[in-house]
Amino acid sequence: MKGLPQPEGIKHYDTDSEIINLPTVSADIIKKQGIFQCIKDRRSIRLYSEEAINLAELSYLLWATQGVTGTNKTGLTFRTVPCSGATHTFETYLFVMNVIGLEKGIYRYLPLEHALIFLFPLDDIEKKLDEISLDQPFIPHFTKKSAVTFAWSTTPYRAEWKFDVSAHKKILIDVGHICQNLYLAGESLDMGVCAIGIYDQEAIDKLLQLDGNEEFIIYLAAVGKKKNK
Amino acid sequence: MKGLPQPEGIKHYDTDSEIINLPTVSADIIKKQGIFQCIKDRRSIRLYSEEAINLAELSYLLWATQGVTGTNKTGLTFRTVPCSGATHTFETYLFVMNVIGLEKGIYRYLPLEHALIFLFPLDDIEKKLDEISLDQPFIPHFTKKSAVTFAWSTTPYRAEWKFDVSAHKKILIDVGHICQNLYLAGESLDMGVCAIGIYDQEAIDKLLQLDGNEEFIIYLAAVGKKKNK
Repeated sequence: MKGLPQPEGIKHYDTDSEIINLPTVSADIIKKQGIFQCIKDRRSIRLYSEEAINLAELSYLLWATQGVTGTNKTGLTFRTVPCSGATHTFETYLFVMNVIGLEKGIYRYLPLEHALIFLFPLDDIEKKLDEISLDQPFIPHFTKKSAVTFAWSTTPYRAEWKFDVSAHKKILIDVGHICQNLYLAGESLDMGVCAIGIYDQEAIDKLLQLDGNEEFIIYLAAVGKKKNK
Repeated sequence: MKGLPQPEGIKHYDTDSEIINLPTVSADIIKKQGIFQCIKDRRSIRLYSEEAINLAELSYLLWATQGVTGTNKTGLTFRTVPCSGATHTFETYLFVMNVIGLEKGIYRYLPLEHALIFLFPLDDIEKKLDEISLDQPFIPHFTKKSAVTFAWSTTPYRAEWKFDVSAHKKILIDVGHICQNLYLAGESLDMGVCAIGIYDQEAIDKLLQLDGNEEFIIYLAAVGKKKNK
């Protein structure tokens, strides 16, 4: 706002890419409808069944975390999560491993289109994700057993343009808003979610072809159907 | 974990203090039960009616944000929100202005007891809160019209003891988890919530008698009944 160029709100993509339109989001697929019970039952869950999730479920999870629910006069988007100054510095990358109808590989969410862009297939995706997410102390190797793992990047300039150095504080708080909605939406689908704050920064940025400076991953979360107890 | 003393999980309080036990949390008071609709309708709302909120509602909001839902073998608490390493570095302070049955003033939430501790009354509480939360660009002076404003402090040592410098990143993400639950729980009660990331750091720490180093405020959110449109 000091005369520097205003950042784009959403990362560009090649329109020749493979775009997967997501099903319209609907409450019909929700198994646990009540917000009270979802808040009460939410836990970080690291054990998943081998059951696949479907596109309608993934559509709902993406909407709940970054879905667009309106725009203001200046074209800034309102989302299902609040964000300081509506800067929305995040992109959502997916490690897709077990989603019906989707090839294994890396995808990115397009919030305005409510669609996925297929970025690339990835050999040994489970192994690579396992290496990135390191061994967690409690239940190692849980990420590679997830159906999908979310990885949120930030492009800090989108907030730096508007704020002072406090932009970085705001970005971290804002990604917390997002992940909490993933936890609750996951719980409502009887899925387990586990946020991942410890990971190999260089490895994931390199794998997702992010430069690690203008854009880099700041938080991840694994998702899968709960194992029957 | 390098041999330094393990931090206490929750701040001490004088047991001679005035303790207000909170009503048992119940889904019965919730107006909008469905999680889907709560996620869909959530907005940052800065216009509140003058209607007071009641203790049952406040009880639910505190539980949704920091309520204890279990403990693990080592005595660490599980909460309604996830937290890196279950370090829960937060204390919840309340600026109470319009809650039935509570004197105006400053309170702190006791998660284990699910109770409030009355810290002190505060003259001109609305004016002081207004000064602390500064003039927000869109709708100035909205905080002083809230029924209650939450202010979350962190005691970073609780996470620093366990983690490296990344503790500070985790703390900010974790307070985002908390605030998102406040947004959704507020929406479910037909209340408006607005997070506040811009505030006078020195003034609020001084007012709440925090040293600004071992413990300091990192995020606030105003809450009030929605104005009829």
